[in-house]
This record gives sequence, C-alpha cells and structure tokens, in this order.
Amino acid sequence: MGKVIIMRQKLGSIEAGGTKFILAAADEAYRVSAKKRIPTEDPTTTLAGCIAFFKENPVDAIGLGSFGPIGIKPGAADYGHILATPKPGWAGTDMVGTLKAALHVPVYFTTDVNASVYGEYIAGSAKDVDSAVYFTIGTGIGGGVIQDGHFIGGYSHLEMGHAPVMLHPDDHYKGFCPFHGNRCFEGVAAGPTIEGRTGIPGEKLNRDHPVFDFINYYAAQMAFSAFVNYAPEKIIFGGSVVDDDNIIKVREIFDQLNHNYVQIPDDLIVHSHFADNASATVGDFALAALLLK
Amino acid sequence: MGKVIIMRQKLGSIEAGGTKFILAAADEAYRVSAKKRIPTEDPTTTLAGCIAFFKENPVDAIGLGSFGPIGIKPGAADYGHILATPKPGWAGTDMVGTLKAALHVPVYFTTDVNASVYGEYIAGSAKDVDSAVYFTIGTGIGGGVIQDGHFIGGYSHLEMGHAPVMLHPDDHYKGFCPFHGNRCFEGVAAGPTIEGRTGIPGEKLNRDHPVFDFINYYAAQMAFSAFVNYAPEKIIFGGSVVDDDNIIKVREIFDQLNHNYVQIPDDLIVHSHFADNASATVGDFALAALLLK
Repeated sequence: MGKVIIMRQKLGSIEAGGTKFILAAADEAYRVSAKKRIPTEDPTTTLAGCIAFFKENPVDAIGLGSFGPIGIKPGAADYGHILATPKPGWAGTDMVGTLKAALHVPVYFTTDVNASVYGEYIAGSAKDVDSAVYFTIGTGIGGGVIQDGHFIGGYSHLEMGHAPVMLHPDDHYKGFCPFHGNRCFEGVAAGPTIEGRTGIPGEKLNRDHPVFDFINYYAAQMAFSAFVNYAPEKIIFGGSVVDDDNIIKVREIFDQLNHNYVQIPDDLIVHSHFADNASATVGDFALAALLLK
Repeated sequence: MGKVIIMRQKLGSIEAGGTKFILAAADEAYRVSAKKRIPTEDPTTTLAGCIAFFKENPVDAIGLGSFGPIGIKPGAADYGHILATPKPGWAGTDMVGTLKAALHVPVYFTTDVNASVYGEYIAGSAKDVDSAVYFTIGTGIGGGVIQDGHFIGGYSHLEMGHAPVMLHPDDHYKGFCPFHGNRCFEGVAAGPTIEGRTGIPGEKLNRDHPVFDFINYYAAQMAFSAFVNYAPEKIIFGGSVVDDDNIIKVREIFDQLNHNYVQIPDDLIVHSHFADNASATVGDFALAALLLK
C-alpha cells in the first residue's frame, strides 16, 4: 500500500507600499514562518530585496498587493506593471515579470486595498458575509470592494479616494490632492490633511481634537456613498486615521446622512479585524493559494 | 428517425414604473409580438392587468424590472416584494408571488435600472464590453451596474441616486429629495428640479437654458463617481433629462472633474442605445431567457 502524500504549500505575501515593502512566507493555514520589512527604494534595489527574501524562504505562489496605479487586466500589455505613479523611478516597473523571472512561481497581482478586502473576506470582519467594502485612510485614501468572491473593477482598478466629496459646511481647508484639491475624499480626509489644517501631525493630536469632526464626517460620507453604490454587508475601515473611537462617531454621522432612507444591516461599519492592518498580508496569502488550486 | 424538435420560447417583459406598466411578449430573438401600456393604479388592479395580458399572450418566463425599493435577495422573506415605497398601497405587494400563482411561469425580479443595464449589456451600447453603468435621470435618479454578467449589489439593490453630491458653487436650489434635500443627486438633478429652479417644466425649456448647466454638471459628477467607484468600460445615460446634446457637455465636464487623473477608455460616456428607453424591455426579455436555460 502506498503512502498518502500530503502537499504542503508555502504561500508568499508582498505588501508593496510607497514607503515600505512587507514580505512574508506562510504555510497553507497562513501561519507566518518568515517576515521582513524593507524600505521602498528604487525598483531594482527593492525588487532584489523581495527576490532575496523568497530565495531564502521559498514559496509556491505569491500574492502581491501593490500601491498604484497598476495594470491588473490579465492579457493587457501593461499587466503586472506599476503605471503612471508620481513616485520617482517606479512608473513602468514590471513587478510581476521581474518576480516570475527570478522566482519561477505564479504571482497574483492586485491593489493593496483589494488584498486587504480579500483578507477581511476570507478570515476577518467580512468572513461571514458575501460582500464587503474596505477603506484605508492613511497617507492617501483607497478602497477595495468584493462581491461573491470577485473584486469590483472592470477597465482598471478602483480609485475610490478620488470620488467627488460633499464638503462639510464649516470646512474651509483648500485640500491637498494634487489633481482635485478639496474636491475628492483624499484631498480633504487623508492623514496629511490633519497637519494641513492644524499644523500638527495627526498622530500627535488627541482624537477629540475638532479636526476629527471633519475626518469622521468624510469617513461617514465615504461609508454612506459605498452603501448606496454597492449595498455591501460590511464596510471596513483600516489605516491609521480611523480608530475604534472614530468608528462610533462614523456610525452616528452615517445615520444622519442616511436619514432613514435605506435599511441598514446590523454592524455594517466596522474596523479592520487585524492588528497593524495585517488584512493585506492574509489577503495576499489567500490570493496566492487561489493560484495553486 | 425522430424529428428534431426546436423549442420556441416566448419571453415576457414587465416594466413596472411608478406611473405606468409596460407589458410585452416576444420570441427568443426579442422580436415583440404584443405590447401594452397600462396605468399604475392600485396593486390589485394593475397586477390583474398584467395577468390578463399574459393570459392573452402566453410566455414561458417573465423578466420584471420594477420601481423600488424591492426585495431582490433570493431566499429572503421579502423576496419578490415591493418594500417601503411612499407610493400609496404598494408597500408590501408580493409582485413575484402574485404573478407566479396566476401564470405558472418563472419570473426574474430586479430593479428597473438593472433591467436597463442588462438590455444595454446584451444588445445595446455595452454589448461589446464586460462592464457598464446605466443611469436614468427622470422623475427620480437611479443606476444599475453590471460586471462580467453579474449585477452589483449585495445586501440589497443599489440606490445610486441618493449618493452624496458635491454642489455646483452657483447652485443655491434647496433640493427636493424628501430624505436628503439638496444633499443627494436625486435632490438636485432629477427632472422635477428643473421646474423647482425655474418654475417651468423641463420639457418646455430649451436645452441651452442655464438650468441645464447644473443638470449637466451633476450628470458628469455621477459619471465621474461611477468611474472611480466601478472602473466600467461604459457609462450609459437613459431617461428623458439627458439627451444627445447633453452628453457632449457631460463628457467635457467629466474631463474637468477628472483633471487627467485616471485614464479613460474611448467612448466611455454614451446615451442609451435604444429609442424610448426600451433598454429595460430588452433586458427583461434577456433576463427571462436566463430562466429557461
């Protein structure tokens, strides 16, 4: 009688951010066996750091959630590339091609926020529902949306942070989005807008500082827009700007914006399930696993 | 040797609107064999009119695109029902149950705008792409979204007309949405807002009247929000308010709102392919056909 051979698959995660890349390897249950953080330098140096990590910690597939804009349409000429980012040196970088050529494993390429919403969907705040929106409010604002296991997005990935915003009547900040000024959510609610309004970095301010009235209002408006635009069962906030105290106020303002118009599921608006915004790492592992099925 | 039997399927369409129901029967190529318009009276009278039509013009399945809000989650207790509409007598009406009990055919139940986007996707302005958004601007504002053959919507259907709006700086109209005043698209851009601002019904005004500067601005903003929120390949306007001349201005304002941020596919913003907003009828037929596969 032959032995039963159990395939143990090793999964890789790359969280490709504008200031750091977080690299991790895990087993098929997402138990992390190795983790490393490297600074985002020029593409050649940074991708060499990724390759060295996965040569030392071999995996069978990699999930790569990246800062954008990126080419995510399979078959398109720019698939797997970083597109027109203002980040010096990175525009046009062939992320997937470079990693595949060196590591000879499949790579699931998507946005950082898609990786996060997938992590929440598989094992986090959305694990018991079929549809969810994930927002991150940090140095920028982004969002990923999943419905029945599929990401929303057609021609390209979403750019939810740049949706037009209804200004708070008392908010006279000029906005910091280089494209839209104060006419998009990123321009009035991303982390740097706190220092832009107060002169003090957000992490040095108490959460009851009045500037958070604006941030909470815009976060609630993002949530309400997401609810009428996707009708999801969960709206999840990650990133450093919205903490657990903010969530309570965001829910209150959401109800004011709704004004009893749409019926709301229980516990619609929640915080990321994972500490340190680790939803993207879990999502990357789970997306890598999809490539091995 | 037996004969080959070709099944000829007859398809039914019900466009259930707030002022009229449009009933139609067609063959499997959507060629209409009978069509009738009945006024929207009380539910019993109106549904009896539907049943009489399909007794006279028998079909094998019906696609029903309805005004809302409606219960569209299969398996839920309110599936197939009209929900909390302000329309007298209609809240709680079991549309699907009533039709099925009398006609003994399957009914595909969805929103009017989902039926429209499906019609455009199968045979209209979006027939060559995989993703599309359909907006109707009429007495209200609604939107339906399709991606790879699936409607966007999880907990319930979308309510895109009630998304928060960035006001035009010169627009001081108080808005007419009973829930949101001037704080949603419907409140500032639906047909009745034209008479609300000018005292003259929209259909009596020339398209170069300044009030259309506001309407075009909001239509363009709806399109831009839809682009960053869904990244569709087509954004289609139906309804009576946005005509072909408006589309040109809507595209110009869209480009101003985008400010070269996102790359735009060719011919992104278009008018409904069908005359008289018949996209919903085609969509209903095609959705009915899905039930017979």
